[in-house]
Amino acid sequence: MATRAIDFFAELEKREKLVASYLKSEEFKNWFHPDHIKEAVYSYVNRAGKRLRPAVLLLACGAVGGKEEEALPAAAAVEMFHTWTLVHDDLIDNDEKRRGGWTVHAQSSMMAKQQMNYTENQAKDYGRDIAILTGDVQQGWAVSLLCDCSLKGNIKPEVTLTLIRMLESYVLNTLVSGETLDIQFARQPIESFKPEQITEMLWRKTGALYEYCARAGAMLGLNTTNSQDKRIVALSNFTGRCGTAFQLQDDILGIIGDEEQLGKPVGSDIREGKRTTIIYYAFKNASSQQKTKLRDVLGKQEATKEEINEITLLLIKLDGISETKRMAQQIIREARPELDALPDSHYKQLLLAWADFMISRDF
Amino acid sequence: MATRAIDFFAELEKREKLVASYLKSEEFKNWFHPDHIKEAVYSYVNRAGKRLRPAVLLLACGAVGGKEEEALPAAAAVEMFHTWTLVHDDLIDNDEKRRGGWTVHAQSSMMAKQQMNYTENQAKDYGRDIAILTGDVQQGWAVSLLCDCSLKGNIKPEVTLTLIRMLESYVLNTLVSGETLDIQFARQPIESFKPEQITEMLWRKTGALYEYCARAGAMLGLNTTNSQDKRIVALSNFTGRCGTAFQLQDDILGIIGDEEQLGKPVGSDIREGKRTTIIYYAFKNASSQQKTKLRDVLGKQEATKEEINEITLLLIKLDGISETKRMAQQIIREARPELDALPDSHYKQLLLAWADFMISRDF
Repeated sequence: MATRAIDFFAELEKREKLVASYLKSEEFKNWFHPDHIKEAVYSYVNRAGKRLRPAVLLLACGAVGGKEEEALPAAAAVEMFHTWTLVHDDLIDNDEKRRGGWTVHAQSSMMAKQQMNYTENQAKDYGRDIAILTGDVQQGWAVSLLCDCSLKGNIKPEVTLTLIRMLESYVLNTLVSGETLDIQFARQPIESFKPEQITEMLWRKTGALYEYCARAGAMLGLNTTNSQDKRIVALSNFTGRCGTAFQLQDDILGIIGDEEQLGKPVGSDIREGKRTTIIYYAFKNASSQQKTKLRDVLGKQEATKEEINEITLLLIKLDGISETKRMAQQIIREARPELDALPDSHYKQLLLAWADFMISRDF
Repeated sequence: MATRAIDFFAELEKREKLVASYLKSEEFKNWFHPDHIKEAVYSYVNRAGKRLRPAVLLLACGAVGGKEEEALPAAAAVEMFHTWTLVHDDLIDNDEKRRGGWTVHAQSSMMAKQQMNYTENQAKDYGRDIAILTGDVQQGWAVSLLCDCSLKGNIKPEVTLTLIRMLESYVLNTLVSGETLDIQFARQPIESFKPEQITEMLWRKTGALYEYCARAGAMLGLNTTNSQDKRIVALSNFTGRCGTAFQLQDDILGIIGDEEQLGKPVGSDIREGKRTTIIYYAFKNASSQQKTKLRDVLGKQEATKEEINEITLLLIKLDGISETKRMAQQIIREARPELDALPDSHYKQLLLAWADFMISRDF
């Protein structure tokens, strides 16, 4: 296990570097204007990231016998696709930090105040505007990167077109529906939820894109438009489930993670009143007095550090964290046999290690 | 001229109907979830629109001898591409009306207040969030529609891929740079501008997409990836220039147009402090007292109806409107000879009538 783990991190890092340097190629540098947009488009790319989505796309490509280099533009595309959703979600969630730096809207807003003499309100609008437009051009960049699988590489153009349509209709719509449900759920009574509703929302928000990554990698690896090939179905089912488990782990880290390591604030899910399985289980096990406490603080934007700490302890004590951890482990356990459809290989071992990392990670 | 004009409007309406009904086909109806997103995605589509972009795409296709029906998915795509930019721009400009109804953010915000018991601030955030996500899925829809030129039609897949990449990198980035400059210009001193800077910004914001429409229509009509064909270059130069003129007319209507006919508020460009050529010329001709008046009201969000009327009269009196009108006419006059590169045809006549309409329209 130890050897495999070390191996896995080296392999992950190798692909992380390939994707990051592809995105930073000279070719793209002159695409973005004016300077504020350009800086914003690159800001998250220039910070350290896990790049788990492009990694699994490349591994899926390898697992079906494909050449990873043919899939590299697509790997960069899913990373960029994920990035634009972060930029827009950070604005929606009113979050100020991402990957150890300011979020796009926070950064642009500060710049407008400090360098352009905007008033507080003007600067807030300017930050919002730059974040909206930045996410917009990043979505376009993601699609353009996908095109290059055929326009610069050897993938059949109909395969690339099929992948673009899948990403821009099915995946995008699933993802936006998940994000919208997440927003709507936050203002509905906690007691009205079933855990299946929450995991369904998490699958939409996160699982669907992971599912796509494996499907795209495998379709590129086989250079085929047939997404019903049993290896492709197995790989995409596997990563889709792992994606949901990843999001459960994300919710856990959002409550008990280390801000420094995560690069984003802990506790903002409590302030935003996010409906997670953590909240569901804690609420289920709570006394009526504890329920009142939870109801009072969840969704309270101006909650103090003390209130956040109190709720965090309550969520631990009432088994919200441990139950969610158990769910995540269960999902991964059930996902692993999907890979039986694939021949044994180094890639298969890496995919299994990748699955373990999705829920063991503490950043 | 009278006969041609009547002909032109009938031809425009025919294509308007084709594009609108393509967008409303059953196939797409189940793509969008939950209901608030679905309603928002269709809201501008369901209202009467001029659909000048898809019309010129189809006309360009016909003008090079292509079959318009092969280009119909692309025509729907550019209309949808334009629509998502409207949704995001309306939010950025804090506009409340579009095509005679509420803008997406205003509508969603009202719904949250009335039906979901959100507070004023929560509702404002919710409106913003739905508008962001709606524009995002509409961008994806536009790209998906383009894919269908090959996935459901007879266009070579490499032609469609070339068109997608052009739209999602060159056109999108040009457009976003124009929109960003528009935002930034509004807070810079009026006296610091040259009219070329403003028309450059207008070309970016509007001309580039019109240029693309003709290029795409002609490339589809010829089923070629070669965008350097002299007919394609002529058509795209022609529509790009007309697009800039269209935006000059839009600026004029934004000051002296009829709200009822336009379906959007008149005067908001004054409140937002937009730097138009109208402002440039008026300011150039103003006395120092008039300059002070202009500086006081331009960009004043809370300007009264009386102040707006006073500025409007000043912009007329100081020749801001008439100079801008003259510029628009000049651009169209210079654009027309581009079409000499094409053989005479009914399509060519329609394109010339289309150009006249771009600046004679009062809605």
